[in-house]
Amino acid sequence: MTGLAELPLRPELVGEQPYGAPQLDVAVRLNVNENPYGPSEAVIAQIAAAVTEVARDLNRYPERDAVALRGDLAAYLGHGLTADHVWAANGSNEVMLHVLQAFAGPGRTVLSFAPTYSMYPEYARDTHSGFVTFPREHDFTIDVDAALAAIEQTRPDVVLVTSPNNPTGTALPLEVVVALVDASPGVVVVDEAYHEFARTGTPSALELLPGRSRLAVSRTMSKAFAFAGGRLGYLAADPAFVDALRVVRLPYHLSAVTQAVARVALANATEMLAAVDRLRVARDEVAAWLAGRGLEVADSDANFVLFGRFADRHAVWQGLLDRGVLIREVGPAGWLRVSAGTPEEMTAFTQALDEVLADDDVSARMP
Amino acid sequence: MTGLAELPLRPELVGEQPYGAPQLDVAVRLNVNENPYGPSEAVIAQIAAAVTEVARDLNRYPERDAVALRGDLAAYLGHGLTADHVWAANGSNEVMLHVLQAFAGPGRTVLSFAPTYSMYPEYARDTHSGFVTFPREHDFTIDVDAALAAIEQTRPDVVLVTSPNNPTGTALPLEVVVALVDASPGVVVVDEAYHEFARTGTPSALELLPGRSRLAVSRTMSKAFAFAGGRLGYLAADPAFVDALRVVRLPYHLSAVTQAVARVALANATEMLAAVDRLRVARDEVAAWLAGRGLEVADSDANFVLFGRFADRHAVWQGLLDRGVLIREVGPAGWLRVSAGTPEEMTAFTQALDEVLADDDVSARMP
Repeated sequence: MTGLAELPLRPELVGEQPYGAPQLDVAVRLNVNENPYGPSEAVIAQIAAAVTEVARDLNRYPERDAVALRGDLAAYLGHGLTADHVWAANGSNEVMLHVLQAFAGPGRTVLSFAPTYSMYPEYARDTHSGFVTFPREHDFTIDVDAALAAIEQTRPDVVLVTSPNNPTGTALPLEVVVALVDASPGVVVVDEAYHEFARTGTPSALELLPGRSRLAVSRTMSKAFAFAGGRLGYLAADPAFVDALRVVRLPYHLSAVTQAVARVALANATEMLAAVDRLRVARDEVAAWLAGRGLEVADSDANFVLFGRFADRHAVWQGLLDRGVLIREVGPAGWLRVSAGTPEEMTAFTQALDEVLADDDVSARMP
Repeated sequence: MTGLAELPLRPELVGEQPYGAPQLDVAVRLNVNENPYGPSEAVIAQIAAAVTEVARDLNRYPERDAVALRGDLAAYLGHGLTADHVWAANGSNEVMLHVLQAFAGPGRTVLSFAPTYSMYPEYARDTHSGFVTFPREHDFTIDVDAALAAIEQTRPDVVLVTSPNNPTGTALPLEVVVALVDASPGVVVVDEAYHEFARTGTPSALELLPGRSRLAVSRTMSKAFAFAGGRLGYLAADPAFVDALRVVRLPYHLSAVTQAVARVALANATEMLAAVDRLRVARDEVAAWLAGRGLEVADSDANFVLFGRFADRHAVWQGLLDRGVLIREVGPAGWLRVSAGTPEEMTAFTQALDEVLADDDVSARMP
């Protein structure tokens, strides 16, 4: 049996592990911010019908530019956007890969504000881009003056900023985005993967796109849209920005089936998004419950809540897992993240956590 | 309207165009080596049933390691392979991207033998790898001594060698593969995208995998398997080689739907591959017909034929397109490539080409 050590792997990859949360067979999964509500039988039937239709031509390559799908995504986003303003790929992961392939890469730098999404350094590594982070404030907001100083110091080619932020849930005021774009020499991507869960009145950076060709807003159908299994991420920007991504995409990156199924989901957007309000309520209720237990809780506009801080967060995570509840060990030291789930799932979580908190050895707080 | 020139694109991408053959609405499409025969209604019904099943959980992320699919692919390949020996991604494009991300990249070199598949330099560009080619012989075979000299001179990190080769159709004897692996300091990928079309008795490099951990064999479901729209490429190698690709893959790269639909196709492999024999016959017939017209024809083990050589191949290509037949303008100067299609498609092609050849201005041969 050969070991990986004997293969001529790139040196920076030696010892690296494949990215991903543990895939465990647990009854209550509140670890990857999925929407717990699947599609209705009516939507499933439409999906089956659409796939039946495209299956007749499965021997042919898919429409390479996915123009119809991109048009549907633009219509969903509104703001006067068209297919030319929208890019789509197999999850936001691939969208971000395309952004960094086009605008970052060797000798170029990606900047973000930590704590933030743990895939960003992977995107940078996979594209041989430099990656630097500057710290957020203690409440996980971004201080504009500090951010501008970071940009002045770093001169980043790509700024990745997440709103609402993962894993903290923190939304970013639009004036911060404007300041980042104005100060940046390169492009700025506002990652709005969780935007639909933001509290009413929280504006989207989509509003800022007109006149700002170096700004892009990324979205995903994995979260609010309840479409994580379908793998469809997208991005809105000036058509010239989209043209740049078209240069680096691999041809036929989106299968005919993916395009067809995503279009069905978009045609049923009202239904697919119907659980968003319930999940917002679940988020606010669990945040209040956690605060009521004397825990620190980050203010969240997403479908998850970061809480802590535990002296041994792994022990708390394990204690919950032992009780059939899987959450995520992520974020700064001492914090844990729980996704908003169904009422039954949230009850299972709070009951399990109460049991874990009753054990003083496990639940000790950080000083 | 902003132009792309105003955006901070990587310098090597400035002026680049998105890769791809023209997508034209033409009755007879013999340009991208698709299998012209779609799935049966029985297979389509199985696909719809499988998608209905996974659609119920579309709100959940897919199985990240696609173990069941990789196991099915291994069973299809035979040779004692298991899921651990197989990698899968959204088309061979993404498989090759993973290979170059793991084993090539900045400061490293990819070597191939021209003329060959026109995506290889794109993979190298997208991963910031050096890319060098050495020429094949006049009959498009690879001379072993010349190849070993090229490897000695280049010390490549990755060798990409295609068998049967695209766009020439040339199969590679296994002793050449053995010599390449033995001489190479890095990894060697034999791209067998068209293997199923090879003449009976043509061995696969899969035979060579045991004991050669730096060798990989890539395949695709796009061609013989009539599954281009489903986007499923794969690769067989030592499990350590597969582990390297797992490090650089983006998590959840294969959607739940892609995995399910590909598994249905694999479960119906006999039917999906049923047209291969007919397409071999069509290939041999059109090759003989072209030779009968006094054209040069490359010896082909794939589902296409390269022929020429025309003083103005674009004029011939355009003449065919004007008659409703789309082929591919690819390969060395003067050559054109036609895919093997249905009997009706081949008749349309030969009739159209006869008309084009009747025009001496258009059909003049290269000296």
